[in-house]
Amino acid sequence: MTTIGHLINGEMVTDGSRSQDVFNPATGQAEKQVLLASKQTVEQAIASAQAAFPAWRNTPPIKRARVMFRFKELLEEHADHICKLIGQEHGKISHDAAGELQRGIENVEFACGAPQLLKGEHSRNVGPGIDSWSEFQPLGVVAGITPFNFPAMVPMWMFPLAIVCGNTFILKPSERDPSSTLYIAQLLKQAGLPDGVLNVVNGDKEAVDTLLTDPRIKAVSFVGSTPIAEYIYATANANGKRCQALGGAKNHAIVMPDADMDNAVNQLLGAAFGSSGERCMALSVAVAVGDEAGDALVTKMQNAMQGLSVGAYDNASNDFGPVITCQHKDKVNGYINSAEQQGASIVVDGRNPKVDGYDNGYFVGATLIDGVTAEMDSYKAEIFGPVLQVVRVKTMQEAMQLIDDHEYGNGTCIFTRDGEAARYFSDNIQVGMVGINVPLPVPVAYHSFGGWKRSLFGDLHAYGPDGVRFYTKRKTITQRWPSSGVREGVSFAFPS
Amino acid sequence: MTTIGHLINGEMVTDGSRSQDVFNPATGQAEKQVLLASKQTVEQAIASAQAAFPAWRNTPPIKRARVMFRFKELLEEHADHICKLIGQEHGKISHDAAGELQRGIENVEFACGAPQLLKGEHSRNVGPGIDSWSEFQPLGVVAGITPFNFPAMVPMWMFPLAIVCGNTFILKPSERDPSSTLYIAQLLKQAGLPDGVLNVVNGDKEAVDTLLTDPRIKAVSFVGSTPIAEYIYATANANGKRCQALGGAKNHAIVMPDADMDNAVNQLLGAAFGSSGERCMALSVAVAVGDEAGDALVTKMQNAMQGLSVGAYDNASNDFGPVITCQHKDKVNGYINSAEQQGASIVVDGRNPKVDGYDNGYFVGATLIDGVTAEMDSYKAEIFGPVLQVVRVKTMQEAMQLIDDHEYGNGTCIFTRDGEAARYFSDNIQVGMVGINVPLPVPVAYHSFGGWKRSLFGDLHAYGPDGVRFYTKRKTITQRWPSSGVREGVSFAFPS
Amino acid sequence: MTTIGHLINGEMVTDGSRSQDVFNPATGQAEKQVLLASKQTVEQAIASAQAAFPAWRNTPPIKRARVMFRFKELLEEHADHICKLIGQEHGKISHDAAGELQRGIENVEFACGAPQLLKGEHSRNVGPGIDSWSEFQPLGVVAGITPFNFPAMVPMWMFPLAIVCGNTFILKPSERDPSSTLYIAQLLKQAGLPDGVLNVVNGDKEAVDTLLTDPRIKAVSFVGSTPIAEYIYATANANGKRCQALGGAKNHAIVMPDADMDNAVNQLLGAAFGSSGERCMALSVAVAVGDEAGDALVTKMQNAMQGLSVGAYDNASNDFGPVITCQHKDKVNGYINSAEQQGASIVVDGRNPKVDGYDNGYFVGATLIDGVTAEMDSYKAEIFGPVLQVVRVKTMQEAMQLIDDHEYGNGTCIFTRDGEAARYFSDNIQVGMVGINVPLPVPVAYHSFGGWKRSLFGDLHAYGPDGVRFYTKRKTITQRWPSSGVREGVSFAFPS
Amino acid sequence: MTTIGHLINGEMVTDGSRSQDVFNPATGQAEKQVLLASKQTVEQAIASAQAAFPAWRNTPPIKRARVMFRFKELLEEHADHICKLIGQEHGKISHDAAGELQRGIENVEFACGAPQLLKGEHSRNVGPGIDSWSEFQPLGVVAGITPFNFPAMVPMWMFPLAIVCGNTFILKPSERDPSSTLYIAQLLKQAGLPDGVLNVVNGDKEAVDTLLTDPRIKAVSFVGSTPIAEYIYATANANGKRCQALGGAKNHAIVMPDADMDNAVNQLLGAAFGSSGERCMALSVAVAVGDEAGDALVTKMQNAMQGLSVGAYDNASNDFGPVITCQHKDKVNGYINSAEQQGASIVVDGRNPKVDGYDNGYFVGATLIDGVTAEMDSYKAEIFGPVLQVVRVKTMQEAMQLIDDHEYGNGTCIFTRDGEAARYFSDNIQVGMVGINVPLPVPVAYHSFGGWKRSLFGDLHAYGPDGVRFYTKRKTITQRWPSSGVREGVSFAFPS
Repeated sequence: MTTIGHLINGEMVTDGSRSQDVFNPATGQAEKQVLLASKQTVEQAIASAQAAFPAWRNTPPIKRARVMFRFKELLEEHADHICKLIGQEHGKISHDAAGELQRGIENVEFACGAPQLLKGEHSRNVGPGIDSWSEFQPLGVVAGITPFNFPAMVPMWMFPLAIVCGNTFILKPSERDPSSTLYIAQLLKQAGLPDGVLNVVNGDKEAVDTLLTDPRIKAVSFVGSTPIAEYIYATANANGKRCQALGGAKNHAIVMPDADMDNAVNQLLGAAFGSSGERCMALSVAVAVGDEAGDALVTKMQNAMQGLSVGAYDNASNDFGPVITCQHKDKVNGYINSAEQQGASIVVDGRNPKVDGYDNGYFVGATLIDGVTAEMDSYKAEIFGPVLQVVRVKTMQEAMQLIDDHEYGNGTCIFTRDGEAARYFSDNIQVGMVGINVPLPVPVAYHSFGGWKRSLFGDLHAYGPDGVRFYTKRKTITQRWPSSGVREGVSFAFPS
Repeated sequence: MTTIGHLINGEMVTDGSRSQDVFNPATGQAEKQVLLASKQTVEQAIASAQAAFPAWRNTPPIKRARVMFRFKELLEEHADHICKLIGQEHGKISHDAAGELQRGIENVEFACGAPQLLKGEHSRNVGPGIDSWSEFQPLGVVAGITPFNFPAMVPMWMFPLAIVCGNTFILKPSERDPSSTLYIAQLLKQAGLPDGVLNVVNGDKEAVDTLLTDPRIKAVSFVGSTPIAEYIYATANANGKRCQALGGAKNHAIVMPDADMDNAVNQLLGAAFGSSGERCMALSVAVAVGDEAGDALVTKMQNAMQGLSVGAYDNASNDFGPVITCQHKDKVNGYINSAEQQGASIVVDGRNPKVDGYDNGYFVGATLIDGVTAEMDSYKAEIFGPVLQVVRVKTMQEAMQLIDDHEYGNGTCIFTRDGEAARYFSDNIQVGMVGINVPLPVPVAYHSFGGWKRSLFGDLHAYGPDGVRFYTKRKTITQRWPSSGVREGVSFAFPS
Repeated sequence: MTTIGHLINGEMVTDGSRSQDVFNPATGQAEKQVLLASKQTVEQAIASAQAAFPAWRNTPPIKRARVMFRFKELLEEHADHICKLIGQEHGKISHDAAGELQRGIENVEFACGAPQLLKGEHSRNVGPGIDSWSEFQPLGVVAGITPFNFPAMVPMWMFPLAIVCGNTFILKPSERDPSSTLYIAQLLKQAGLPDGVLNVVNGDKEAVDTLLTDPRIKAVSFVGSTPIAEYIYATANANGKRCQALGGAKNHAIVMPDADMDNAVNQLLGAAFGSSGERCMALSVAVAVGDEAGDALVTKMQNAMQGLSVGAYDNASNDFGPVITCQHKDKVNGYINSAEQQGASIVVDGRNPKVDGYDNGYFVGATLIDGVTAEMDSYKAEIFGPVLQVVRVKTMQEAMQLIDDHEYGNGTCIFTRDGEAARYFSDNIQVGMVGINVPLPVPVAYHSFGGWKRSLFGDLHAYGPDGVRFYTKRKTITQRWPSSGVREGVSFAFPS
Repeated sequence: MTTIGHLINGEMVTDGSRSQDVFNPATGQAEKQVLLASKQTVEQAIASAQAAFPAWRNTPPIKRARVMFRFKELLEEHADHICKLIGQEHGKISHDAAGELQRGIENVEFACGAPQLLKGEHSRNVGPGIDSWSEFQPLGVVAGITPFNFPAMVPMWMFPLAIVCGNTFILKPSERDPSSTLYIAQLLKQAGLPDGVLNVVNGDKEAVDTLLTDPRIKAVSFVGSTPIAEYIYATANANGKRCQALGGAKNHAIVMPDADMDNAVNQLLGAAFGSSGERCMALSVAVAVGDEAGDALVTKMQNAMQGLSVGAYDNASNDFGPVITCQHKDKVNGYINSAEQQGASIVVDGRNPKVDGYDNGYFVGATLIDGVTAEMDSYKAEIFGPVLQVVRVKTMQEAMQLIDDHEYGNGTCIFTRDGEAARYFSDNIQVGMVGINVPLPVPVAYHSFGGWKRSLFGDLHAYGPDGVRFYTKRKTITQRWPSSGVREGVSFAFPS
């Protein structure tokens, strides 16, 4: 059985004390073992990153960027292998893994623009003969702690930008599906990154807590659930670190009566069930305004969902794969059960689907629930499964109130043809990422990703322009040169 | 005796339960009483700000900016009165108060540019037919907690920018010298600010803790000492608020052997003793490189300091005034005593100066201490008094190490004529605000103010471009319009 | 009879050789005389501006901006007098003059942000130990040549920004209505502008050609008709000057079948007839898509136009005033005649309206012409009068083709409720300023104004961010400091 | 003998009517023939670019950028071949060609950041319910006309950025050394650029004039000599095109008495003689301040120049190669002769050097001339050969006056250790690109390249941020949505 170790100072390290199974969620089999780093191993990684920092910091940004240019090439060259690793451990269908990887590569492409992104502001004559300018300097050693659901993309939201800004990095990927992350990190070494600049440690709470408390770590980026995000943020801050911690979500789409319903349904299929709904931007609630819209939506969704197929990652004709663990499968089913018990109507029932040849896989089929209300448990929680719930309201204002009352504020969407409705919605809704006829409004890599309310702890969003600010600190320099005689004096100071 | 209340929803409010004396530090007399807001009073202010938010948020930025244009005029018109209020309660000489006020006005001038500053980034065609853009929306109700040493300037680092970005504001100024702050806030009402957009509550820990825990407060800006800053930051964060908390400082100037020594001495006089050294950017340590530089510096400083005069605020020929309290005077003297006891040499002794007619004032004269070392208590602490300490080192590298080893990283300066030394220093020193022959490198209002290490808790610096980011949250909108038939279909949809 | 002279080096100058009548277009009476500057007088102004340049260039931007802050106050204080001067010479109704002035003031407000706007870009480590940054330095003496139709606003598109960027300025306003412009310039002197920084010369082609050929003039901004703009641009360029020359327009609104027709009509009234249509952004062609929309538009416009009133400037109940000259009145009437002769239908006829008490005024009433085609003379030309022509087309695509085929590309608008139509239109139309349900899409002062095709000659648009670039030249500095021994050597160079 | 044709619509085209020899300047042999495109051939290229424009314009910027990512890889892969082609036709030594190519690649790297660079500015609520934003749209078909001295780099200043901004491009490279340019263009096709987006036509004045007058060409970028630049600029402008035309230079270095003379000499060697001085940024005049500096400079230069070796491109131990043509060799020698005749002293004489095996090559050796004055012909003209002239002055002010009096203002440099002298120089000198101890202050690709005075005609500099602005036009959109009933009305419009 393969054993997955750590990448420290450019070398694969195996820290033998503790380990954990890595499962194939389509088969329910443990196929690999991941080592769980001890405090000492993490400290070794930190020491490596600390040692690599001074030289890397002083490397001109354009040279740092060129490592990213080469990294992009390697990622594209080895895309199939990366997607396969994702599929084996996460269960994501190959086309979905390819999409995830592409989104990650886009962050590498953005990082290639570092010289432009790191420009400071220069002011001549802030006072007579006085100039002032700002510089954005790297922080030092920074850490990233990333979730299982995007083992390639989310790490690449973080380390390419952090590194290109001059920092060195410790990445702690999810212990559920660490292989693709580790493989990617090795490609970056191959791209010419000096040893120690990027280190990967696999592990659990011991590793996380070491990262959160070691004074050499200057910043932490985290993506995961809200309770953990809150813990990470509080602990990192209490230990003098900069932190951005992205948590959970409950993303609603408002379906207006004037919406192009076929388009809306087509968009919702992917947004609700893609990657089994295990996305922080998954569209899990459709809010239909008026029963005419509601009826049309439910009928058309029900029809469209007939064509969806759940199965293993390596069959590209599948639409989505299993959920990540057996426990998680039970949890998702539990939410469907609770909705049923609390009075909602299970229009399409994905509980316990039959997937030939994968009887022990953690599969949940696409599920559509109508008649959901704000009081139901299935509405309040982030289910993180292939479940779309329909809430019916009478007015757009009511729909917006529902969204604003939810604790999360990650993404949201409105389906409409009407410019005014779209503008009012996008202006007023208390959500950080807003789609207009775009159900997964994930910002492109040159914008920034971040929710509001309890979906993000921190001032700055992830990646894009905000990412640059997060991974750098502002230094402001004010300069005046006293007349030293060199300029005026030369004619007599150095007589001919 | 005058009683100083609160400004809530545009009205002066007197909350009678508790109060505290406000002293004239030049005379040692309590001349006024400031009311200390109860939790209920603070909540009343928050409710007022909350109620004012929706309309203010929807007011176009240019209209919000015009209130600031008018506010600037009123500040200039009433400058003398503001400086007098500062002098009476803080003790600052009129010319120094005028300088402080001017720095505050510069932040109002910057706020006038809100429409430009609030621009988001727009991208056409992030994908085929898909556009995306960012907006910077206000947070809601935000709070500022400000220190005694700049009762006019530091509040104006905060509320003009916060308000012009569309937020409503609760200001809790220092209870030691609240009158000028309150007066300024009233001018902003006079400038046309709607009631409730800016509220001022005077108070102590009860008021502060109410601000830190009330869920309606979305962000807190703080300036004060490092222990309090740390408490504010942790508490605000734990309560789900954005926070920037600026703390203490120990600002060093390196005096290089090639420095223009007369210029350096001239600059240091103001930087070390201005405002009695009660500035977070006060230059309190001169690090002389080589004994030749050290000897020249000490001799020339000693001579120059003969001309300095300490006294009451209303005599413009004085260079600086008393410190803020009797206790603080004792503390400053205590540090001078300790330096003497620990082996340093008191070159110019400002302890217990004679100020005619002000026998009970809290005066400390300008003090120069030579032979200070990193181990002395007077070196480690922020004295916040008119005391300049000289440390002697052999090399520039040693000087830089000294600075980097100090817990604070607010401001620093190098005196040199040499471009290379200046560049190396500014690039490498671990301090947020760096001066080259500028001993008080306070960034101008269109740059941002912030220290590193334990001088600032938070990601974003104060005022300037960072201030705009602090007082707004990013929203990213992604838009696609499905072909709805309106564009293509009109010729047959509406036949003639 | 009042004689209007020049403002040179802070003094009013009367150059006696030549002059011209200034008429009140409501009465047809010549009420003032404007002096026409000789080449020598213009050169005197240039010399004054040249002499004032070095000191003004070296004045810190924030100090230059403060003159603009004060200027804004004075403009607001003297608004009524400025509007009266505009009314007397241009004929514009007082509320319209106030609107013009307000738009001018907005450019002054933008200019107040100069310190922010002039920031260059700073890059640390473009190579090892090498830094590079850009600065935006003033050009020197620059000139503005402005039209009669906005005697207050268009000059303020130019000189506030040019001056705040550090240039000195020669303004040649329209000789038809020079008084308000001259008065405004005097207010700027009163605001504290040093003598010589802004000079105003009245004149005709002799003055213009002097400005275009004098080597001391570094740039020319022009607004007027396209043939003159083309001449100005070619001549200025041939004489080594930077130039932006804004010319004519023919602004179309597409009225889609789904438009809110009452809103469209209401908007079109002001856009077509406001200021007698003498605006380069006047909406002069409505393109109705489908006859249903066309019929509704014409009927509703016809009704709404009953309420319009044409008359003298000082009666605020009038909607618009006379055109600028008797010759221009004849020209406008001539285009109406030609449309009639070429087969269009004059739905509302404004030729020779009766204005009691103003029998000799140059009045044309609001005119609506239906059935206009692209071949008609009245369609091809810029009429610059209160005439709205309706063209009927079958499809939106046909409407867009019509717009793209016209030689001008200044402004355009679409009336629709449909997001997709609006997006397609704004993306593809070959026009520089696009309105979506906004018939006068004049960019606000913090964006920039400029048409495409033959509506603008030059690379950069007027005012706003482009204005800053137009009035400055980029300097790029690259800096490396050889190790000079000062930094490393001090320990032994200056032994203790 | 190889015949060099054109690249039109993705195909190599041979237009047979006229051709011209392409020489190897090291041997003096014509080794290839380049075809000279007729008007018809150029028009064919324009038609191809015009046809390719609509689809390319609508391709999302990120997809356009990805062609550039791939292009960079191919350029690196084929670097040796490109350098060989440069060497054969231009004569540049391989290491110098590699440096040129690298500078070109840096512009491709910058172009990869297109999505970030093309962002417009978005303003919510410019008025109540009104939004406004800017977009930077491509111009259409644009042309580049490039010089012999950088056959790889200068074209890559232009077409990568123009193309990534959405334009299609016609490149007319120098007919003296067209092969490397053509080869590079073919690599871009290989990188995935659609046919017709980049076309290369070889030719002479007929081709140039076709590009300058054809109405389908929207903009022209040119680099060459000042008289031609002036012609290009005037002709392009007169034909309604945007133009930037970069011309000649005479770049001075001030050598201050405090300069690190060994460093200065070392820098000057490459800056004066690299690429045989055939660079518009070549440092051709050293201005020594004080005779002590002058004597030291001349002596050290004379010594250092002993080590320089001139020869053929394929011997990497050579420092520089031949000049471009026999005529040009005679011209350079003529300037040396004239300096001698007019009283200057030829310290190192490079006329007619002996290069074994290359008796017919166009070689001029490194030449140092002392005692040059502003009146000499050799001082006034741009020699464009390996000739460094030394002018001696008494003061820095005198040195600056000399620079400011020269007609050109491309690059300049100061050698000093003194911060104040450097600051004064860089602030005040009337030159667009300023070096501080950097004798070839060519801005990096993410800044912009441009001289002042008669070194550049146009408003915007080449490449970098200005390049983006040059290759795009600003569109400003203002949007208001009338309340259409969709938002408010749904509850009763679609009753349940």
